[in-house]
Amino acid sequence: MPSTVAAIVAPSATDRLTVSTIERRDVGPHDVLIDIRWAGICHSDIHTIKGDWGPQQYPLTVGHEIAGVVAEVGSEVTKHRVGDRVGVGCLVNSCGECANCTAGSEQYCLNGAIGTYGAKDVDGTITQGGYSTSVVVTEDFVLRLPEEIPFEKAAPLLCAGITTYSPLRHWNAGPGTRVAVVGLGGLGHMAVKLAHAMGAEVTVLTRTLAKKDDAIALGADRAFATNDPETFRELRGAFDLIINTVSAPIDVDAHLKLLALDGTLVNVGAPAEPLSLHVGTLIGGRRSFAGSNIGGIAETQEMLDFCAEHGISPEVEIVSASEVNEAWDRVLASDVRYRFVIDASTIAG
Amino acid sequence: MPSTVAAIVAPSATDRLTVSTIERRDVGPHDVLIDIRWAGICHSDIHTIKGDWGPQQYPLTVGHEIAGVVAEVGSEVTKHRVGDRVGVGCLVNSCGECANCTAGSEQYCLNGAIGTYGAKDVDGTITQGGYSTSVVVTEDFVLRLPEEIPFEKAAPLLCAGITTYSPLRHWNAGPGTRVAVVGLGGLGHMAVKLAHAMGAEVTVLTRTLAKKDDAIALGADRAFATNDPETFRELRGAFDLIINTVSAPIDVDAHLKLLALDGTLVNVGAPAEPLSLHVGTLIGGRRSFAGSNIGGIAETQEMLDFCAEHGISPEVEIVSASEVNEAWDRVLASDVRYRFVIDASTIAG
Repeated sequence: MPSTVAAIVAPSATDRLTVSTIERRDVGPHDVLIDIRWAGICHSDIHTIKGDWGPQQYPLTVGHEIAGVVAEVGSEVTKHRVGDRVGVGCLVNSCGECANCTAGSEQYCLNGAIGTYGAKDVDGTITQGGYSTSVVVTEDFVLRLPEEIPFEKAAPLLCAGITTYSPLRHWNAGPGTRVAVVGLGGLGHMAVKLAHAMGAEVTVLTRTLAKKDDAIALGADRAFATNDPETFRELRGAFDLIINTVSAPIDVDAHLKLLALDGTLVNVGAPAEPLSLHVGTLIGGRRSFAGSNIGGIAETQEMLDFCAEHGISPEVEIVSASEVNEAWDRVLASDVRYRFVIDASTIAG
Repeated sequence: MPSTVAAIVAPSATDRLTVSTIERRDVGPHDVLIDIRWAGICHSDIHTIKGDWGPQQYPLTVGHEIAGVVAEVGSEVTKHRVGDRVGVGCLVNSCGECANCTAGSEQYCLNGAIGTYGAKDVDGTITQGGYSTSVVVTEDFVLRLPEEIPFEKAAPLLCAGITTYSPLRHWNAGPGTRVAVVGLGGLGHMAVKLAHAMGAEVTVLTRTLAKKDDAIALGADRAFATNDPETFRELRGAFDLIINTVSAPIDVDAHLKLLALDGTLVNVGAPAEPLSLHVGTLIGGRRSFAGSNIGGIAETQEMLDFCAEHGISPEVEIVSASEVNEAWDRVLASDVRYRFVIDASTIAG
C-alpha cells in the first residue's frame, strides 16, 4: 500500500505553501525509491500552481529538480543501486514506443510524456513533485549524478541545466558561434556557463546592466542592457543563436534582427500570451523562431556528464522548508542568484 | 547616353498600367544588354505598385521574371555572349563584398542587394523592371537559360522557381521527407513540381479542393482543404517541412501543429500585418517558424539547371501588353493557372 511522506503542498492556486503529507506508490519491479535530499525551485513550479498553464488538481506538490539517494529498488531494476546518488528532472515516464521516444526524445512523446508533477500518471493518480522527502520513479527516468557535481548543486541541472543544454547542442553552439542569452536567471546563468564551456562566444542580454559583473564571472564575454535601444542597433546581425530564457513576452522582431544569416531565436520559456512578429523579419536573413522543451533522458545524462567534466554547476542559495514561500516571492521579484534549492531534510519538521 | 525603351508603366499607386517609355543606362564594361522576350507577372509586382511594402517613386515599371536574348555585351564581359538566352530575376546587383555576398547569398547582402525594380541603383537612379523591351544588367546577375526549358516558361523560374527551390534545398527536402505546400498559385505550383522532383512526399494545402486534380497532376501525392477543420486534426504532426506561399495572414499555430518533431514552417511570402503565435506551439515539438527570400545567383543557376535536368517548367498563360491590367485583376482574384507571362514583343506597339 502507498506510503505517506512529508511534502510541501500547495492547497490551492492562491494559498501559501504549507508542509503536509502526500502519498507515494509502492515500489514496483522497475521502480526506484529515492530519498530526496535537495529540490530546486523553478519558475515553472509557480506558474503551474497559479494555474497560468491550465487548471490543476489541488492539493499539489511541485518540484522537478530532484537530487537524492536510492533507498530501495524494484526486483527488476538494473540501472541503479541502493546508495547511488541520483536525480529526477521534469519527466517521470513516457510511452517508450512512439517515434520520438524511440529516438530518445521522450520530452516530445507523441502519446504525452508524464510530467513530474500535476500530470496524470499511468495508474491514474496525479504526479506529485520533488518538494518532498521521497519519490518513486521508474528506473529509466532516473539519472546518475556524477560525483564531481556538489550534491545540492546537481538538482537545478535537471531542469535549468538540460533546458539550456539541449538547444545549445541542437543548434550547434561551439567554437566560432556567437550565442546570446536573454535573461540572467536560473536558466540564463546555466546557458551562459554551458555555452562558454562549449566554446561559443557568449553575450548576455539583460534588462539592465545590474548583473553585468555576474555575467562576466559566469563566463560571458560581454553583456548588454535590453532597456537601452542602442543595444538593438549595435548588435544587429551579431548572433548565430539566441537562447531566450525569459518567459514574459519580448519584442520578437527586435530580437530576431540581432541574428545573422540563418540564425535562430530559441524560446525555452513559454509566455501564456501569443507573441507577434513580422514575417519580413524572418525572410530578411532566413531567420528562424523556434522553441525547445527540456531534453531527452539520454541527453540529460550527457548534460550531467558534461557538467562534471567541465566543472560546471549552478549558483545556488539553500533554503529550508519554512523559507519556500519567501523564496517564491523572490523568484517572482527576480531576486535570486541564481537558483533556490530546498534542503529536503527540513521538510519533515 | 541612356536609351529610351518601351515599357509598361505604373503612373501611380492607383492608376492602371499603361505602355510608355523608360530609360536604360549605357552598356558599361561589365554590363549585358538584354532584349527582353518574356516577362512573368508576380504578385509582388502588384504589392509594390500599390505601396503595400513601402512608398515608391512613380512612374515605375515592375517585373522581375525576365527571359531574353543578349543583344550587346560590355568590353569586360566574359560570362555571356551576344545571342545567348539569358534571364534576370529579383536582383540586379549587391555589394559583392560582405559575408553574405561572398558566401553566395547575395539576396541577403548586408549592404542591401539591389532589387530589379523600385530600388536605388549604384548610379542613384531607380531600377526599372522587366515589363519592358530591354534591360541592362551587370553580367554577374544574369543567368544562363538552359535550352531544355521553353523560352516563355523560363521567366517565372527566376522568381517563383528560385523562391521555392531555395527553401526546399535549405531544409533538405528529398526522399523520405514529408513536405506540405500551402497555396497553389504561381509559387505553390512550382514548389509542388520541385519538391516532387527532389523525391519528397508532397501534400498540397489549399483553401478548397477546387484545384485538387491540378495538384495531383503537378506532382502532389495528395491535397487537403484548409477551410475544413478536419484537415488540421488529420494532419497533425504529419510534415517535416511546410512551405507557405500565401502572403495573406494564416493561422500560424494551426499550421505549426502540422509539423512533426524538428519540423519547420517556412514563409516565402510576407504579409504586411504582423502574425501571432503561441510559443508553446514551437516548444512542443522543437518546431521552427522561418522565412526565406528568393535565392543567391549561383543557386538560381543551379535551380535552372535542375529544372532542365528534370523537365520542370511552370504552367503559364501568355498575355499581351494590352492584357496586363486584366491579368493583374485575375492575379488578385487568384484566377491564374499558374503564372501570367507577358509577350514583350507586344509592348512596343
